[in-house]
Amino acid sequence: MSSPLERLRALGFELPRPPEALASYVPTRSVPISTTHQLVWVAGQVPVRDGKPLYTGRVPDEVSIEVAQEAARECALNILAQAERSGGLDRVEQVIQLTAFVLSADGFGEQPRVANAASELLADVLGPAGQHSRIAVGANALPLGVPVEIAAVLLMRSD
Amino acid sequence: MSSPLERLRALGFELPRPPEALASYVPTRSVPISTTHQLVWVAGQVPVRDGKPLYTGRVPDEVSIEVAQEAARECALNILAQAERSGGLDRVEQVIQLTAFVLSADGFGEQPRVANAASELLADVLGPAGQHSRIAVGANALPLGVPVEIAAVLLMRSD
Amino acid sequence: MSSPLERLRALGFELPRPPEALASYVPTRSVPISTTHQLVWVAGQVPVRDGKPLYTGRVPDEVSIEVAQEAARECALNILAQAERSGGLDRVEQVIQLTAFVLSADGFGEQPRVANAASELLADVLGPAGQHSRIAVGANALPLGVPVEIAAVLLMRSD
Repeated sequence: MSSPLERLRALGFELPRPPEALASYVPTRSVPISTTHQLVWVAGQVPVRDGKPLYTGRVPDEVSIEVAQEAARECALNILAQAERSGGLDRVEQVIQLTAFVLSADGFGEQPRVANAASELLADVLGPAGQHSRIAVGANALPLGVPVEIAAVLLMRSD
Repeated sequence: MSSPLERLRALGFELPRPPEALASYVPTRSVPISTTHQLVWVAGQVPVRDGKPLYTGRVPDEVSIEVAQEAARECALNILAQAERSGGLDRVEQVIQLTAFVLSADGFGEQPRVANAASELLADVLGPAGQHSRIAVGANALPLGVPVEIAAVLLMRSD
Repeated sequence: MSSPLERLRALGFELPRPPEALASYVPTRSVPISTTHQLVWVAGQVPVRDGKPLYTGRVPDEVSIEVAQEAARECALNILAQAERSGGLDRVEQVIQLTAFVLSADGFGEQPRVANAASELLADVLGPAGQHSRIAVGANALPLGVPVEIAAVLLMRSD
Protein backbone atom coordinates (compact mmCIF):
# COMPACT_ATOMS: atom_id res chain seq x y z
CA MET A 1 0.00 0.00 0.00
CA SER A 2 1.41 3.35 -1.05
CA SER A 3 1.17 6.53 1.02
CA PRO A 4 -0.62 9.69 -0.12
CA LEU A 5 2.74 11.36 -0.77
CA GLU A 6 3.87 8.43 -2.90
CA ARG A 7 0.64 8.50 -4.89
CA LEU A 8 1.03 12.26 -5.35
CA ARG A 9 4.52 11.74 -6.78
CA ALA A 10 3.37 8.86 -8.96
CA LEU A 11 0.85 11.28 -10.49
CA GLY A 12 3.71 13.65 -11.30
CA PHE A 13 3.07 16.20 -8.58
CA GLU A 14 5.20 17.52 -5.73
CA LEU A 15 3.74 18.88 -2.54
CA PRO A 16 4.29 22.65 -2.62
CA ARG A 17 5.41 24.66 0.36
CA PRO A 18 2.08 25.57 2.02
CA PRO A 19 1.23 29.22 1.30
CA GLU A 20 1.50 31.48 4.31
CA ALA A 21 -1.61 33.36 5.22
CA LEU A 22 -1.13 37.07 4.85
CA ALA A 23 -2.07 39.60 7.53
CA SER A 24 -4.04 38.54 10.57
CA TYR A 25 -5.42 35.23 9.52
CA VAL A 26 -3.96 31.73 9.56
CA PRO A 27 -3.99 28.94 6.97
CA THR A 28 -5.80 26.35 9.12
CA ARG A 29 -7.76 26.10 12.35
CA SER A 30 -8.37 22.78 14.11
CA VAL A 31 -11.15 21.84 16.50
CA PRO A 32 -10.82 18.63 18.56
CA ILE A 33 -14.10 16.71 18.40
CA SER A 34 -12.93 13.65 20.34
CA THR A 35 -9.77 12.31 21.93
CA THR A 36 -8.73 10.96 18.54
CA HIS A 37 -10.03 13.33 15.85
CA GLN A 38 -10.18 16.96 14.88
CA LEU A 39 -12.01 19.00 12.30
CA VAL A 40 -9.67 21.23 10.32
CA TRP A 41 -10.90 24.31 8.48
CA VAL A 42 -8.48 25.15 5.65
CA ALA A 43 -8.52 28.77 4.44
CA GLY A 44 -9.41 29.47 0.82
CA GLN A 45 -6.46 28.33 -1.28
CA VAL A 46 -5.55 30.02 -4.52
CA PRO A 47 -3.09 28.97 -7.23
CA VAL A 48 -0.09 30.87 -5.92
CA ARG A 49 3.56 29.99 -5.42
CA ASP A 50 5.80 32.24 -3.33
CA GLY A 51 3.00 34.80 -3.18
CA LYS A 52 2.67 35.10 -6.98
CA PRO A 53 -0.40 33.88 -8.91
CA LEU A 54 0.36 31.03 -11.30
CA TYR A 55 -2.82 31.71 -13.29
CA THR A 56 -5.12 34.70 -13.66
CA GLY A 57 -8.25 35.35 -15.68
CA ARG A 58 -11.93 34.62 -16.07
CA VAL A 59 -13.35 31.35 -17.40
CA PRO A 60 -13.96 30.75 -20.29
CA ASP A 61 -13.23 34.01 -22.14
CA GLU A 62 -9.83 34.83 -20.61
CA VAL A 63 -8.67 31.35 -19.64
CA SER A 64 -9.96 28.03 -20.94
CA ILE A 65 -11.68 25.40 -18.81
CA GLU A 66 -8.52 23.30 -19.18
CA VAL A 67 -6.30 26.03 -17.76
CA ALA A 68 -8.79 26.67 -14.97
CA GLN A 69 -8.62 22.94 -14.18
CA GLU A 70 -4.83 23.24 -13.84
CA ALA A 71 -5.42 26.15 -11.47
CA ALA A 72 -7.92 24.04 -9.51
CA ARG A 73 -5.28 21.31 -9.16
CA GLU A 74 -2.88 23.88 -7.70
CA CYS A 75 -5.56 24.82 -5.15
CA ALA A 76 -5.92 21.13 -4.27
CA LEU A 77 -2.14 20.76 -3.92
CA ASN A 78 -2.11 23.71 -1.55
CA ILE A 79 -4.94 22.13 0.48
CA LEU A 80 -2.84 18.95 0.71
CA ALA A 81 0.19 21.01 1.70
CA GLN A 82 -1.81 22.69 4.46
CA ALA A 83 -2.98 19.25 5.68
CA GLU A 84 0.63 18.03 5.65
CA ARG A 85 1.67 20.97 7.81
CA SER A 86 -1.37 20.60 10.06
CA GLY A 87 -0.68 17.10 11.38
CA GLY A 88 0.34 15.25 8.24
CA LEU A 89 -1.30 13.94 5.09
CA ASP A 90 -1.34 10.42 6.56
CA ARG A 91 -3.72 11.66 9.23
CA VAL A 92 -6.43 12.84 6.84
CA GLU A 93 -9.30 10.49 7.61
CA GLN A 94 -11.80 12.22 5.33
CA VAL A 95 -12.03 15.33 3.23
CA ILE A 96 -15.45 16.54 4.34
CA GLN A 97 -16.21 19.45 2.05
CA LEU A 98 -14.68 21.59 -0.66
CA THR A 99 -16.03 25.06 -1.44
CA ALA A 100 -14.91 26.12 -4.91
CA PHE A 101 -15.30 29.60 -6.39
CA VAL A 102 -14.62 29.87 -10.12
CA LEU A 103 -13.95 33.29 -11.68
CA SER A 104 -16.70 33.18 -14.29
CA ALA A 105 -17.95 35.16 -17.22
CA ASP A 106 -21.66 35.94 -16.94
CA GLY A 107 -23.61 32.93 -18.18
CA PHE A 108 -20.79 30.42 -17.68
CA GLY A 109 -22.23 27.32 -16.03
CA GLU A 110 -19.47 24.71 -15.97
CA GLN A 111 -18.02 25.44 -12.55
CA PRO A 112 -18.40 21.73 -11.62
CA ARG A 113 -16.12 20.71 -14.51
CA VAL A 114 -13.45 23.09 -13.24
CA ALA A 115 -13.85 21.95 -9.63
CA ASN A 116 -13.75 18.29 -10.69
CA ALA A 117 -10.03 18.65 -11.39
CA ALA A 118 -9.45 19.41 -7.72
CA SER A 119 -11.90 16.74 -6.54
CA GLU A 120 -10.31 14.06 -8.70
CA LEU A 121 -6.79 14.93 -7.57
CA LEU A 122 -7.82 14.60 -3.91
CA ALA A 123 -9.50 11.26 -4.60
CA ASP A 124 -6.48 10.03 -6.55
CA VAL A 125 -4.06 10.97 -3.77
CA LEU A 126 -6.14 10.09 -0.71
CA GLY A 127 -8.37 7.31 -2.03
CA PRO A 128 -11.86 7.10 -0.48
CA ALA A 129 -10.66 9.54 2.21
CA GLY A 130 -10.42 12.14 -0.53
CA GLN A 131 -14.07 11.92 -1.62
CA HIS A 132 -15.99 14.90 -0.29
CA SER A 133 -19.19 16.86 -0.51
CA ARG A 134 -18.82 20.05 -2.48
CA ILE A 135 -20.07 23.54 -3.23
CA ALA A 136 -19.10 24.93 -6.66
CA VAL A 137 -20.23 28.40 -7.69
CA GLY A 138 -19.17 31.30 -9.89
CA ALA A 139 -17.76 34.66 -8.83
CA ASN A 140 -17.19 37.82 -10.85
CA ALA A 141 -14.02 38.69 -8.95
CA LEU A 142 -11.43 36.75 -6.94
CA PRO A 143 -8.25 37.70 -5.07
CA LEU A 144 -5.38 38.62 -7.44
CA GLY A 145 -7.66 37.74 -10.36
CA VAL A 146 -7.03 34.00 -10.02
CA PRO A 147 -9.44 31.66 -11.86
CA VAL A 148 -10.23 29.49 -8.82
CA GLU A 149 -10.28 29.63 -5.02
CA ILE A 150 -11.00 26.49 -2.98
CA ALA A 151 -11.49 26.09 0.77
CA ALA A 152 -11.84 22.78 2.63
CA VAL A 153 -13.03 21.15 5.82
CA LEU A 154 -11.04 18.04 6.78
CA LEU A 155 -11.46 15.32 9.39
CA MET A 156 -8.02 14.40 10.71
CA ARG A 157 -6.72 11.92 13.26
CA SER A 158 -5.02 13.72 16.12
CA ASP A 159 -3.28 10.76 17.76
CA MET B 1 -47.81 14.74 16.07
CA SER B 2 -47.08 14.46 12.38
CA SER B 3 -43.74 13.42 10.92
CA PRO B 4 -41.63 15.63 8.67
CA LEU B 5 -42.64 13.54 5.68
CA GLU B 6 -46.32 13.92 6.53
CA ARG B 7 -45.93 17.67 6.91
CA LEU B 8 -44.09 17.81 3.60
CA ARG B 9 -46.98 16.05 1.90
CA ALA B 10 -49.55 18.24 3.67
CA LEU B 11 -47.76 21.21 2.11
CA GLY B 12 -48.22 19.63 -1.31
CA PHE B 13 -44.64 18.46 -1.83
CA GLU B 14 -43.11 15.07 -2.47
CA LEU B 15 -39.59 14.17 -1.48
CA PRO B 16 -37.60 13.95 -4.71
CA ARG B 17 -35.05 11.24 -5.41
CA PRO B 18 -31.85 12.76 -4.01
CA PRO B 19 -29.64 14.01 -6.83
CA GLU B 20 -26.52 11.95 -7.37
CA ALA B 21 -23.27 13.82 -7.15
CA LEU B 22 -21.47 13.82 -10.45
CA ALA B 23 -17.81 12.91 -10.84
CA SER B 24 -15.62 12.43 -7.78
CA TYR B 25 -17.63 14.05 -5.08
CA VAL B 26 -20.46 12.79 -2.92
CA PRO B 27 -23.76 14.37 -1.86
CA THR B 28 -23.13 14.27 1.90
CA ARG B 29 -20.34 13.70 4.39
CA SER B 30 -20.99 12.92 8.04
CA VAL B 31 -18.72 13.47 11.03
CA PRO B 32 -19.59 11.78 14.35
CA ILE B 33 -19.26 14.33 17.15
CA SER B 34 -20.53 12.07 19.95
CA THR B 35 -21.92 8.59 20.40
CA THR B 36 -25.35 9.93 19.51
CA HIS B 37 -24.92 12.73 16.97
CA GLN B 38 -23.22 13.60 13.73
CA LEU B 39 -22.66 16.74 11.71
CA VAL B 40 -23.66 16.28 8.08
CA TRP B 41 -22.30 18.53 5.34
CA VAL B 42 -24.71 18.52 2.39
CA ALA B 43 -23.22 19.46 -0.99
CA GLY B 44 -24.59 22.49 -2.82
CA GLN B 45 -28.04 21.53 -4.10
CA VAL B 46 -29.44 22.97 -7.30
CA PRO B 47 -32.98 22.77 -8.70
CA VAL B 48 -32.46 19.71 -10.87
CA ARG B 49 -34.46 16.57 -11.44
CA ASP B 50 -32.87 13.61 -13.20
CA GLY B 51 -29.83 15.73 -13.98
CA LYS B 52 -31.85 18.43 -15.80
CA PRO B 53 -32.30 21.98 -14.45
CA LEU B 54 -35.91 22.83 -13.61
CA TYR B 55 -35.16 26.57 -13.72
CA THR B 56 -32.43 28.67 -15.28
CA GLY B 57 -31.75 32.38 -15.40
CA ARG B 58 -30.66 35.42 -13.49
CA VAL B 59 -32.78 37.25 -10.92
CA PRO B 60 -34.63 39.56 -11.49
CA ASP B 61 -34.14 40.30 -15.19
CA GLU B 62 -34.35 36.75 -16.57
CA VAL B 63 -36.46 35.10 -13.87
CA SER B 64 -38.67 36.81 -11.32
CA ILE B 65 -38.13 36.66 -7.57
CA GLU B 66 -41.18 34.41 -7.38
CA VAL B 67 -39.72 31.90 -9.82
CA ALA B 68 -36.39 32.04 -8.01
CA GLN B 69 -38.27 31.27 -4.80
CA GLU B 70 -39.72 28.15 -6.45
CA ALA B 71 -36.20 27.19 -7.43
CA ALA B 72 -35.05 27.77 -3.83
CA ARG B 73 -37.81 25.42 -2.63
CA GLU B 74 -36.49 22.74 -5.00
CA CYS B 75 -33.03 23.19 -3.47
CA ALA B 76 -34.57 22.78 -0.01
CA LEU B 77 -36.44 19.64 -1.13
CA ASN B 78 -33.16 18.21 -2.39
CA ILE B 79 -31.50 19.00 0.94
CA LEU B 80 -34.34 17.13 2.68
CA ALA B 81 -33.93 14.26 0.24
CA GLN B 82 -30.23 14.07 1.02
CA ALA B 83 -31.01 14.06 4.75
CA GLU B 84 -33.55 11.27 4.20
CA ARG B 85 -30.91 9.20 2.43
CA SER B 86 -28.25 10.06 5.01
CA GLY B 87 -29.94 8.57 8.06
CA GLY B 88 -33.52 9.73 7.69
CA LEU B 89 -35.46 12.98 7.97
CA ASP B 90 -36.68 11.94 11.42
CA ARG B 91 -33.12 12.08 12.66
CA VAL B 92 -32.55 15.73 11.76
CA GLU B 93 -32.11 17.36 15.16
CA GLN B 94 -31.24 20.79 13.81
CA VAL B 95 -30.51 22.44 10.50
CA ILE B 96 -27.41 24.39 11.48
CA GLN B 97 -26.67 26.53 8.48
CA LEU B 98 -27.76 27.18 4.92
CA THR B 99 -25.46 28.85 2.40
CA ALA B 100 -27.51 30.24 -0.49
CA PHE B 101 -26.10 31.62 -3.73
CA VAL B 102 -28.56 33.51 -5.92
CA LEU B 103 -27.77 34.12 -9.59
CA SER B 104 -28.10 37.89 -9.55
CA ALA B 105 -28.07 40.81 -11.92
CA ASP B 106 -25.61 43.51 -10.86
CA GLY B 107 -27.26 45.67 -8.24
CA PHE B 108 -29.88 43.11 -7.20
CA GLY B 109 -30.07 43.04 -3.40
CA GLU B 110 -32.98 40.78 -2.48
CA GLN B 111 -31.11 37.51 -2.11
CA PRO B 112 -32.64 37.08 1.39
CA ARG B 113 -36.17 37.14 -0.06
CA VAL B 114 -35.22 34.37 -2.47
CA ALA B 115 -33.50 32.32 0.23
CA ASN B 116 -36.46 32.79 2.58
CA ALA B 117 -38.49 30.41 0.43
CA ALA B 118 -36.04 27.62 1.27
CA SER B 119 -35.74 28.66 4.91
CA GLU B 120 -39.51 28.72 5.39
CA LEU B 121 -39.99 25.33 3.76
CA LEU B 122 -37.43 23.76 6.08
CA ALA B 123 -39.08 25.37 9.10
CA ASP B 124 -42.53 24.25 7.93
CA VAL B 125 -41.42 20.66 7.44
CA LEU B 126 -39.04 20.25 10.40
CA GLY B 127 -40.47 22.71 12.92
CA PRO B 128 -37.94 24.39 15.24
CA ALA B 129 -35.36 21.83 14.04
CA GLY B 130 -35.59 23.51 10.65
CA GLN B 131 -34.59 26.98 11.84
CA HIS B 132 -31.00 27.71 10.92
CA SER B 133 -28.37 30.38 10.60
CA ARG B 134 -27.81 31.47 7.04
CA ILE B 135 -25.53 33.03 4.46
CA ALA B 136 -27.27 34.55 1.41
CA VAL B 137 -25.22 36.19 -1.32
CA GLY B 138 -25.32 36.88 -5.04
CA ALA B 139 -23.29 35.25 -7.79
CA ASN B 140 -22.88 36.24 -11.43
CA ALA B 141 -22.70 32.61 -12.58
CA LEU B 142 -23.92 29.27 -11.22
CA PRO B 143 -23.74 25.67 -12.45
CA LEU B 144 -26.05 25.03 -15.43
CA GLY B 145 -27.28 28.62 -15.12
CA VAL B 146 -29.69 27.78 -12.29
CA PRO B 147 -31.07 30.72 -10.28
CA VAL B 148 -30.15 29.29 -6.85
CA GLU B 149 -27.69 26.89 -5.23
CA ILE B 150 -28.00 26.03 -1.54
CA ALA B 151 -25.69 23.99 0.69
CA ALA B 152 -26.39 22.93 4.28
CA VAL B 153 -24.84 21.75 7.51
CA LEU B 154 -27.13 19.50 9.57
CA LEU B 155 -26.98 18.05 13.06
CA MET B 156 -28.42 14.52 12.96
CA ARG B 157 -29.00 11.81 15.51
CA SER B 158 -26.98 8.73 14.70
CA ASP B 159 -28.62 6.25 17.05
CA MET C 1 -5.39 41.59 31.70
CA SER C 2 -8.20 43.39 29.95
CA SER C 3 -11.38 41.72 28.73
CA PRO C 4 -12.46 41.63 25.06
CA LEU C 5 -15.10 44.27 25.79
CA GLU C 6 -12.53 46.53 27.40
CA ARG C 7 -10.18 46.12 24.46
CA LEU C 8 -13.06 46.86 22.07
CA ARG C 9 -13.76 50.11 23.90
CA ALA C 10 -10.07 51.00 24.05
CA LEU C 11 -10.07 50.75 20.25
CA GLY C 12 -12.94 53.24 20.13
CA PHE C 13 -15.73 50.79 19.33
CA GLU C 14 -18.96 49.92 21.09
CA LEU C 15 -20.63 46.54 20.78
CA PRO C 16 -23.74 47.08 18.65
CA ARG C 17 -27.09 45.49 19.42
CA PRO C 18 -26.84 42.17 17.51
CA PRO C 19 -28.92 42.34 14.32
CA GLU C 20 -32.03 40.22 14.41
CA ALA C 21 -32.34 37.65 11.67
CA LEU C 22 -35.26 38.37 9.42
CA ALA C 23 -37.85 35.78 8.45
CA SER C 24 -37.34 32.15 9.30
CA TYR C 25 -33.70 32.00 10.09
CA VAL C 26 -31.75 32.72 13.25
CA PRO C 27 -28.51 34.66 13.85
CA THR C 28 -26.55 31.76 15.38
CA ARG C 29 -26.72 28.00 15.78
CA SER C 30 -24.64 26.11 18.33
CA VAL C 31 -23.55 22.49 18.31
CA PRO C 32 -22.11 20.95 21.49
CA ILE C 33 -18.97 19.00 20.62
CA SER C 34 -18.01 18.08 24.20
CA THR C 35 -19.19 18.73 27.73
CA THR C 36 -17.23 21.98 27.70
CA HIS C 37 -17.30 23.39 24.17
CA GLN C 38 -19.60 24.19 21.30
CA LEU C 39 -19.20 25.17 17.68
CA VAL C 40 -21.23 28.25 16.80
CA TRP C 41 -22.22 29.06 13.24
CA VAL C 42 -22.86 32.81 12.91
CA ALA C 43 -25.10 33.86 10.01
CA GLY C 44 -23.72 36.19 7.37
CA GLN C 45 -23.41 39.62 8.98
CA VAL C 46 -23.81 42.80 6.97
CA PRO C 47 -23.06 46.41 7.96
CA VAL C 48 -26.54 47.28 9.18
CA ARG C 49 -27.86 49.09 12.23
CA ASP C 50 -31.54 48.90 13.11
CA GLY C 51 -32.18 47.14 9.82
CA LYS C 52 -30.69 49.94 7.70
CA PRO C 53 -27.44 49.55 5.70
CA LEU C 54 -24.62 51.80 6.91
CA TYR C 55 -22.78 51.43 3.61
CA THR C 56 -23.78 50.42 0.09
CA GLY C 57 -21.91 50.11 -3.16
CA ARG C 58 -19.40 48.14 -5.15
CA VAL C 59 -15.64 48.19 -4.54
CA PRO C 60 -13.65 50.07 -5.83
CA ASP C 61 -15.75 52.09 -8.31
CA GLU C 62 -18.67 53.00 -6.05
CA VAL C 63 -16.99 52.83 -2.64
CA SER C 64 -13.27 52.95 -1.92
CA ILE C 65 -11.31 50.12 -0.33
CA GLU C 66 -11.08 52.27 2.81
CA VAL C 67 -14.85 52.62 3.08
CA ALA C 68 -15.28 48.92 2.40
CA GLN C 69 -12.85 48.25 5.25
CA GLU C 70 -15.06 50.33 7.55
CA ALA C 71 -17.99 48.21 6.40
CA ALA C 72 -15.97 45.05 7.09
CA ARG C 73 -15.32 46.31 10.64
CA GLU C 74 -19.07 46.71 11.12
CA CYS C 75 -19.54 43.10 10.03
CA ALA C 76 -16.90 42.05 12.57
CA LEU C 77 -18.61 44.08 15.30
CA ASN C 78 -21.87 42.33 14.50
CA ILE C 79 -20.14 38.95 14.69
CA LEU C 80 -18.81 39.93 18.13
CA ALA C 81 -22.29 41.10 19.13
CA GLN C 82 -23.73 37.75 18.08
CA ALA C 83 -21.06 35.95 20.11
CA GLU C 84 -21.85 38.16 23.12
CA ARG C 85 -25.53 37.19 22.85
CA SER C 86 -24.71 33.53 22.22
CA GLY C 87 -22.92 32.80 25.52
CA GLY C 88 -20.67 35.82 25.90
CA LEU C 89 -17.55 37.26 24.29
CA ASP C 90 -15.44 35.94 27.17
CA ARG C 91 -16.35 32.42 26.13
CA VAL C 92 -14.94 32.68 22.60
CA GLU C 93 -12.05 30.22 22.69
CA GLN C 94 -11.20 30.55 19.00
CA VAL C 95 -12.60 32.17 15.91
CA ILE C 96 -12.32 29.24 13.52
CA GLN C 97 -13.23 30.68 10.15
CA LEU C 98 -14.49 33.83 8.49
CA THR C 99 -16.15 33.74 5.09
CA ALA C 100 -16.07 37.21 3.53
CA PHE C 101 -17.93 38.25 0.38
CA VAL C 102 -16.91 41.62 -1.08
CA LEU C 103 -19.20 43.39 -3.56
CA SER C 104 -16.70 43.75 -6.38
CA ALA C 105 -16.37 45.36 -9.76
CA ASP C 106 -15.25 42.89 -12.42
CA GLY C 107 -11.50 42.55 -12.25
CA PHE C 108 -11.17 43.80 -8.67
CA GLY C 109 -8.76 41.52 -6.82
CA GLU C 110 -8.15 43.07 -3.41
CA GLN C 111 -10.84 41.27 -1.43
CA PRO C 112 -8.20 40.19 1.12
CA ARG C 113 -7.33 43.82 1.88
CA VAL C 114 -10.99 44.55 2.59
CA ALA C 115 -11.43 41.42 4.71
CA ASN C 116 -8.22 42.20 6.64
CA ALA C 117 -10.02 45.06 8.39
CA ALA C 118 -12.42 42.52 9.93
CA SER C 119 -9.68 40.00 10.65
CA GLU C 120 -7.50 42.58 12.38
CA LEU C 121 -10.36 43.88 14.51
CA LEU C 122 -11.13 40.36 15.74
CA ALA C 123 -7.46 39.75 16.54
CA ASP C 124 -7.18 43.11 18.31
CA VAL C 125 -10.24 42.42 20.46
CA LEU C 126 -9.83 38.71 21.13
CA GLY C 127 -6.07 38.27 20.94
CA PRO C 128 -4.83 34.90 19.61
CA ALA C 129 -8.40 33.61 20.01
CA GLY C 130 -9.37 36.01 17.23
CA GLN C 131 -6.98 34.61 14.64
CA HIS C 132 -8.87 32.48 12.14
CA SER C 133 -8.70 30.75 8.80
CA ARG C 134 -10.51 32.66 6.09
CA ILE C 135 -12.26 32.61 2.75
CA ALA C 136 -12.37 35.95 0.90
CA VAL C 137 -14.06 36.20 -2.49
CA GLY C 138 -15.88 38.68 -4.69
CA ALA C 139 -19.58 38.84 -5.50
CA ASN C 140 -21.42 40.90 -8.09
CA ALA C 141 -24.45 41.38 -5.83
CA LEU C 142 -25.05 41.32 -2.07
CA PRO C 143 -28.13 41.84 0.14
CA LEU C 144 -29.25 45.49 0.26
CA GLY C 145 -26.25 46.38 -1.92
CA VAL C 146 -23.82 46.36 1.03
CA PRO C 147 -20.09 46.24 0.19
CA VAL C 148 -19.31 43.29 2.49
CA GLU C 149 -20.98 40.27 4.09
CA ILE C 150 -19.06 38.11 6.57
CA ALA C 151 -20.08 34.83 8.23
CA ALA C 152 -18.15 33.04 10.98
CA VAL C 153 -17.65 29.73 12.73
CA LEU C 154 -16.63 30.08 16.39
CA LEU C 155 -15.44 27.67 19.06
CA MET C 156 -16.96 28.72 22.37
CA ARG C 157 -16.76 27.41 25.92
CA SER C 158 -20.16 26.29 27.15
CA ASP C 159 -19.40 25.95 30.85
